[in-house]
Amino acid sequence: MQAQVWDNPLWRSLLPLGRDEQAGGYRRYSFTAADAACRDWFVQAALQRNLRTEADRNGNLWAFWDAGTESAAVAAGSHLDSVPDGGAFDGPLGVVSAFCAIDVLRERGFEPARPVAVVAFAEEEGARFGRACLGSRLSSGVIEPEAARELTDADGVTLAQAMAAAGLDSGRIGADAGLGSRFAAFVELHIEQGSVLDGLGAAVGVGESIWPHGRWRLDFAGRADHAGTTRLGDRRDPMLPFACAVLEARAAAKDTGALATMSKVAAVPGGTNGINSAVRAWLDARAPDDEHLIRLVDQVMETARAAAATHGVSFRAERESWSPLVKFDLELQDRLVTALAHAGITAPVLPTGAGHDAGVLASVLPTAMLFVRNPSGVSHSPAEYAAPQDCQAGVEALAVVLTELAGR
Amino acid sequence: MQAQVWDNPLWRSLLPLGRDEQAGGYRRYSFTAADAACRDWFVQAALQRNLRTEADRNGNLWAFWDAGTESAAVAAGSHLDSVPDGGAFDGPLGVVSAFCAIDVLRERGFEPARPVAVVAFAEEEGARFGRACLGSRLSSGVIEPEAARELTDADGVTLAQAMAAAGLDSGRIGADAGLGSRFAAFVELHIEQGSVLDGLGAAVGVGESIWPHGRWRLDFAGRADHAGTTRLGDRRDPMLPFACAVLEARAAAKDTGALATMSKVAAVPGGTNGINSAVRAWLDARAPDDEHLIRLVDQVMETARAAAATHGVSFRAERESWSPLVKFDLELQDRLVTALAHAGITAPVLPTGAGHDAGVLASVLPTAMLFVRNPSGVSHSPAEYAAPQDCQAGVEALAVVLTELAGR
Repeated sequence: MQAQVWDNPLWRSLLPLGRDEQAGGYRRYSFTAADAACRDWFVQAALQRNLRTEADRNGNLWAFWDAGTESAAVAAGSHLDSVPDGGAFDGPLGVVSAFCAIDVLRERGFEPARPVAVVAFAEEEGARFGRACLGSRLSSGVIEPEAARELTDADGVTLAQAMAAAGLDSGRIGADAGLGSRFAAFVELHIEQGSVLDGLGAAVGVGESIWPHGRWRLDFAGRADHAGTTRLGDRRDPMLPFACAVLEARAAAKDTGALATMSKVAAVPGGTNGINSAVRAWLDARAPDDEHLIRLVDQVMETARAAAATHGVSFRAERESWSPLVKFDLELQDRLVTALAHAGITAPVLPTGAGHDAGVLASVLPTAMLFVRNPSGVSHSPAEYAAPQDCQAGVEALAVVLTELAGR
Repeated sequence: MQAQVWDNPLWRSLLPLGRDEQAGGYRRYSFTAADAACRDWFVQAALQRNLRTEADRNGNLWAFWDAGTESAAVAAGSHLDSVPDGGAFDGPLGVVSAFCAIDVLRERGFEPARPVAVVAFAEEEGARFGRACLGSRLSSGVIEPEAARELTDADGVTLAQAMAAAGLDSGRIGADAGLGSRFAAFVELHIEQGSVLDGLGAAVGVGESIWPHGRWRLDFAGRADHAGTTRLGDRRDPMLPFACAVLEARAAAKDTGALATMSKVAAVPGGTNGINSAVRAWLDARAPDDEHLIRLVDQVMETARAAAATHGVSFRAERESWSPLVKFDLELQDRLVTALAHAGITAPVLPTGAGHDAGVLASVLPTAMLFVRNPSGVSHSPAEYAAPQDCQAGVEALAVVLTELAGR
């Protein structure tokens, strides 16, 4: 079944860019040809609307509707890059909706009291360089430029080299000290990556918080052996405690009302007729608060350690990333909910387990999020989908929010 | 600890060939430069002993000690290729020991009544083209030449292309109809790939049978999703039933007194922060008889199917290979045990779970196996090891056997 697609010229012109015909999903990795095509699309969309464009030194793209004042601007947007074989909505919906909201405001004769900006942050997914929200992290100063330049992709290409290949100067990346004073607020509209809104019967929602989340690497070291001759009792098979960890991650998440996933695994040497010498795997875990998250991870690691010991396998775990709880600015959140209610839009407030640029920027300026209903809840997949009328409801909600925040 | 290396010039000259300095193990893949070096070594060893060499049309190497008679020959040997990062003994020990046994026999003034041959079979491990015992299978006529030529390695190179690159003509591969009449027996000496002999306190043993064994592919198809937002109840995560299958394989093997291993796994797309759309894995299973093997595999598949259903994941299993029980020629086995006993060598009779060229050739001529003690039982690993005195005991046992089989 071909889902009905949002009938919008801006959306239609973006849809073919970076899509893999075979997989059906998107491969819009930062600083590649697909990424350049998306950047061109952004600049064209801005030019068509007579917006002033600006590429900042961290590779983030901005389009300004100037207001003839020195007031701090209100920004809306998201990102254009994708996970491997990602969907059409995660990221792009926020950028397209921001441009469309400006169209709606202009049609209505709205005159902004402060500049309104559309933004597309670079490398939000971290699909190429392994660090999520890299563009907003650099601008917020939460990652050092030196460390960022040395990040490498799967082929060993550094961020510095990739930026150079895309005609950008990585020597200038780093914190944007003026961000907090030049911008009064940032509102990120995003497809919901779950189906809470669908359950509530709402087309749009307002973000309350981003769950604390992190990534842990688990290393199981056993002993390579012949699968056809080594007695069970003589084996030191690292695949067995790994399997226990996978199942415990699910059980622990259930126990704590959280989320835990083990999807990436590398078995060495990985032959069909041998026992592996090592299995390396990653745990992604998220919970409503730090306490639950720590309890969940402890539970998985304890099980992994005990199972490893049972099988004569050594075990080591390392935390690779950690993002603390983000509470979106409460005053801004209230203004959004109230303005939407005045416009007749019921927007439930909900937390999310996914990281977003709005979460990163929350440390330097008031940020908020709008979610658009995702009936299946599927995301990071070609099957990700939002109905045309819900996308339109998102644009309307964003127009209401921008009127509230940038109006006289 | 550097294991004491068998102090033998033939052994020492073979040791460096195809060894990966970093991994410490061997990567002697068929028709590569490492393989060519091993083949040169074989020819040099034969020339030094004034043996007539012959490369048959299937890439197997032969060295003949002619007896001036038309009698059927007795062959001894094994293979020189390795699994990825394999040990020094699996294969080479049988070839080196055969040359050394000839040295021993000549020192003792033995005059053969029939030709004695040393053989190194091609692609025994199947590490490059995925089909174990390819050289002996071709010669025995149990694999069609057309099918063999189209086998591909991990880079998509066909056997035909690889043989051509090594200066061999794949157009001539196929069954050797005269094998059964030209050879009276084949005796394969091999390091034990387990520690049964060590438990019995014996340096050498005689093969009784090769357990039936096979390989099955398990395909779990779920749905790609965001790891940070998709509710547990909405997930279709293929990693969970895979983990259940891994643990069931171990449990079922224990229940049935058999062996089962899951080591090769491919998760797609395999990102850290997404749920996989698919997991493909392989089961290697071996048991004393067909009935136990079938019961074991059924048990694993039932658990996998049930776990897949629980998690909304589809499941499909396919048998990729199947080798029935091989009983080595009982008369030949008895002659070996008796001759060894007469020479004062106690050689217990034992089955093995590993496939061997002697098992394949058993369908066309009487074959037998000699095993050399492996104190740790470790094989298919750089840590594989046999003590020098046990290797020497193996040479002595093989000399006794050749005297029995090729004597006047």
